[in-house]
Amino acid sequence: MSHLFLRTLRDDPADAEVPSHKLLVRAGYVRRIAPGIYSWLPLGLKVLRQVERVVREEMNNIGAQEISLPALLPREPYETSNRWTEYGAGLFRLQDRKGNDLLLGPTHEELFALTVKGEYNSYKDFPVTLYQVQTKYRDEERPRAGILRGREFVMKDSYSFDLTDEGLTQSYKAHRDAYERIFARLGVKYVIVSATSGAMGGSASEEFLAESEVGEDTYVRCVESGYAANVEAVKTLAPAPIPFDGLPEAVVHDTPDTPTIDSLVEASRQILGRDVDASETLKNILVKVRQPGGEWELVGIGIPGDREVDDKRLEASFEPAEVALLDETDFAANPFLVKGYIGPKALLANGVRYLVDPRVVDGTSWITGADENGKHVFGLVAGRDFVADGTVEAAEVRDGDPSPDGAGPLVSARGIEIGHVFQLGRKYTDAFAVDVLNENGKPVRPTMGSYGVGVSRLVAVIAEQQHDEKGLRWPAEVAPFDVHVVIANKDEQARTGAENLVEELSNAGLDVLFDDRKASPGVKFKDSELLGMPLVVVVGRGFADGNVELRNRITGESNEVPVGEAVRVILGR
Amino acid sequence: MSHLFLRTLRDDPADAEVPSHKLLVRAGYVRRIAPGIYSWLPLGLKVLRQVERVVREEMNNIGAQEISLPALLPREPYETSNRWTEYGAGLFRLQDRKGNDLLLGPTHEELFALTVKGEYNSYKDFPVTLYQVQTKYRDEERPRAGILRGREFVMKDSYSFDLTDEGLTQSYKAHRDAYERIFARLGVKYVIVSATSGAMGGSASEEFLAESEVGEDTYVRCVESGYAANVEAVKTLAPAPIPFDGLPEAVVHDTPDTPTIDSLVEASRQILGRDVDASETLKNILVKVRQPGGEWELVGIGIPGDREVDDKRLEASFEPAEVALLDETDFAANPFLVKGYIGPKALLANGVRYLVDPRVVDGTSWITGADENGKHVFGLVAGRDFVADGTVEAAEVRDGDPSPDGAGPLVSARGIEIGHVFQLGRKYTDAFAVDVLNENGKPVRPTMGSYGVGVSRLVAVIAEQQHDEKGLRWPAEVAPFDVHVVIANKDEQARTGAENLVEELSNAGLDVLFDDRKASPGVKFKDSELLGMPLVVVVGRGFADGNVELRNRITGESNEVPVGEAVRVILGR
Repeated sequence: MSHLFLRTLRDDPADAEVPSHKLLVRAGYVRRIAPGIYSWLPLGLKVLRQVERVVREEMNNIGAQEISLPALLPREPYETSNRWTEYGAGLFRLQDRKGNDLLLGPTHEELFALTVKGEYNSYKDFPVTLYQVQTKYRDEERPRAGILRGREFVMKDSYSFDLTDEGLTQSYKAHRDAYERIFARLGVKYVIVSATSGAMGGSASEEFLAESEVGEDTYVRCVESGYAANVEAVKTLAPAPIPFDGLPEAVVHDTPDTPTIDSLVEASRQILGRDVDASETLKNILVKVRQPGGEWELVGIGIPGDREVDDKRLEASFEPAEVALLDETDFAANPFLVKGYIGPKALLANGVRYLVDPRVVDGTSWITGADENGKHVFGLVAGRDFVADGTVEAAEVRDGDPSPDGAGPLVSARGIEIGHVFQLGRKYTDAFAVDVLNENGKPVRPTMGSYGVGVSRLVAVIAEQQHDEKGLRWPAEVAPFDVHVVIANKDEQARTGAENLVEELSNAGLDVLFDDRKASPGVKFKDSELLGMPLVVVVGRGFADGNVELRNRITGESNEVPVGEAVRVILGR
Repeated sequence: MSHLFLRTLRDDPADAEVPSHKLLVRAGYVRRIAPGIYSWLPLGLKVLRQVERVVREEMNNIGAQEISLPALLPREPYETSNRWTEYGAGLFRLQDRKGNDLLLGPTHEELFALTVKGEYNSYKDFPVTLYQVQTKYRDEERPRAGILRGREFVMKDSYSFDLTDEGLTQSYKAHRDAYERIFARLGVKYVIVSATSGAMGGSASEEFLAESEVGEDTYVRCVESGYAANVEAVKTLAPAPIPFDGLPEAVVHDTPDTPTIDSLVEASRQILGRDVDASETLKNILVKVRQPGGEWELVGIGIPGDREVDDKRLEASFEPAEVALLDETDFAANPFLVKGYIGPKALLANGVRYLVDPRVVDGTSWITGADENGKHVFGLVAGRDFVADGTVEAAEVRDGDPSPDGAGPLVSARGIEIGHVFQLGRKYTDAFAVDVLNENGKPVRPTMGSYGVGVSRLVAVIAEQQHDEKGLRWPAEVAPFDVHVVIANKDEQARTGAENLVEELSNAGLDVLFDDRKASPGVKFKDSELLGMPLVVVVGRGFADGNVELRNRITGESNEVPVGEAVRVILGR
């Protein structure tokens, strides 16, 4: 440590909010160069390399082959896939001296599809899975939390190519299993959440989220069943339909000045002479939806009045179509839309596609707009008085909502995305006409999976999950050094003893950090806690009696062992 | 190999001119993505990693510490050092979504100076040497020869920080020695050439050039002494001065229509009545020179008439000043400049700085311009009739010129720059005011060295130097695999035998490439030669007699060994 390029800091950096960011900077692991752009100092780089090693080992174990594509890429392939524009401001674009458009790769589906197309042309070559551990670039709008969300970051991205859907399912499963092993080895606590509403099948896309209060991803889970999903992917558990028998007729009432749910609830209470809950009302929201390359289409969405629309869920439901709110021109062009009093009837009568929340099952009875100013209809029964065109997942998910598997209530939590497995299908092999010949000489189009691990982000995630108030705590698998030997005794013999111990541990194959500085024991202990090697060996006062102290940084336990047995004890841990 | 992501090509790629480029593409090591931008396929990536490993080992051995700086960098530090503009079109520049200027790092002197400034503030921390192995970007005007001169490439760059010039000399020496070890381990044939004219001292900057006919760098060397230098760095060996005694007076002659050396030589022959050599004439070239931030200054340059000006040498002599030719305005503003007849006298009389070739020593006698149209002066003696303001290295260097050390003639050769060691001094620590406190609490400014190795380029250089007409030939230190086992026998027992051999070799710690494909022996042998593992083991016809064949790809030797002894023989090599 007297030579290590390292200065620990006493104070938290001014721009740091989350613990991992504060600690990684204070402990001299990373340094900020620009927003979302960091340097890795010696200790940080060692952890990064350890994470890379674990990721590579598990990728190689499933037969994935490592290659390395450039980060600086030509525009054309991204133009073909439409991502040159789709990425928007998140893509770093530049021009070379000849005026050719280039970009910094945010992810490499295009290039991997082209790479396989360039080399392989027979069914015999498949399946094949390729990966890279590479520096990627995304111009994040809000880079934050140090290396947790950077603009330059290291990612492992892999891509599987199969000729059949079953093959893709297998490749997907192999990656999913490998990711479970990776995160287990790294000591990361995580959940796997469904990441799509399942348009491509239930397991088409899943995210690995590290559990963390500072995470930007919200997900919900059911403690009883272990179900977990991104909020966008939660499917509402629909109640059983209700028989129409005995349901009263729908009646229109005057409800002046009730354009909001609150005012409608109050008016309904007076009309019905009983307490009315907002969940008895049905609010109808109008949006317009446009398929890529298509025309805008009006869509009505009916959800129970006690819930807000969740924009992310709404957008996910219509993907890849674009969703927008109506403007005044739209209302003017459709005079049957009576703001604040829109009901299912006018929508359906005027050919507007009308989608309802899954809770709006047949036989449910609603207070909703009567398509006239100041009027609502009471007791409008789904399936009897109106028939929607389908359901839509647009309403917010709340803590306590039933889990889709019916096992219990959902609770929400926050996480950090550390991995993503995705059955891409043929989007990119179609875009680049990747065809290979089958047994009969006929062309077959491979189907792709795409899989990512946030390698540099994991360094922050591990720090985030493992730290304590004193500093970092690295699991042995990723620690920059296996053992941290601290001299805390000015005696010359103690120094020699410590040096011998370092040599013996090194000869035994351990990577040893040796605090040989002249600083006080207090400073050294503080630094050893901040730096966070899993085992600290103190050559201190006890050395006069022939003992050294072993401190387990993870558990906090400490015990004295005779110096002659120290190496044996450490190796046997 | 039945699963390896690899397709070898029979034909040379259309855009390839140099052997390494052709072979690395044909053997499936790299693939072109855009001009100067390449992908590394599995075999190529393994070689690249091997080179990186060797470089890291030797860097760590001299106590250099690895860190990793971003490739995407903010403009400000490069603005401070003036390289944001100095780099010209060679720098990839871009803007982020907020309009901030960014660049892709071509080299990192600025950031390393700032990094050290950020961490260290006491003399006790020095010396320190930091390095990184990193992807770098330069927008080369003419990217060529595959990965030999790319726009995205891997470089090891290191930077030493010392408090004294002696310390810098030691750090420089340590790097120079480490580079010699690196290139020796990689089996690269190279020369070390002086890279500057020595303004900062004789050893201030040296380049490691791999010997290669396809190299872009021309250098000269003296076989007798081992002297080698970039052409820009060659110092002309000046002859001894000649006593003035007995030298005839200078005489002006009419030499109408002799604005060129050829016409002057012919006129001189007639005037003197003897053969005249162009080397007896002194031609005077006018340039203008501007120090950074300064005004243009006229400079006259006198060189023997038999030599051309070498622009690179001229520019190197004036660095960091800019050099330009005069335009008509300049001539009009200085009417004493008589085009075609310019002589030393008018220049010196009018206060123009006049520098001469080192061969123009005192007592040498010249035919040169007389500053009047159609007139030259004969027998103008340096040191007697004119006294130049100094010497300048501007004349071309020719094969056969004497070596600066006087040991023999210079011969020119071509090379590829693979390493560069440079005593930078305080340029960057001055720019960023990097100060540390000495023993007395007074600020001291560290002096820097900067050192680079072209890591990805070395893969091409090794291929270039080691290949033969059949393909690549990798030295064991960098080969993607240690051994290439080829089944060339359809017998089931031979297959089992080969599989067992592969397993035994793998268990013995060797990295084995196994050609288990169903292709013909001919195809497999051709591929094994193209791919270039140092040792090929053929399980072929001889297997029936219990033998396998060992083929040394480097020497071309081959011999049969009993299969039971193969592992022992291979390990014992």
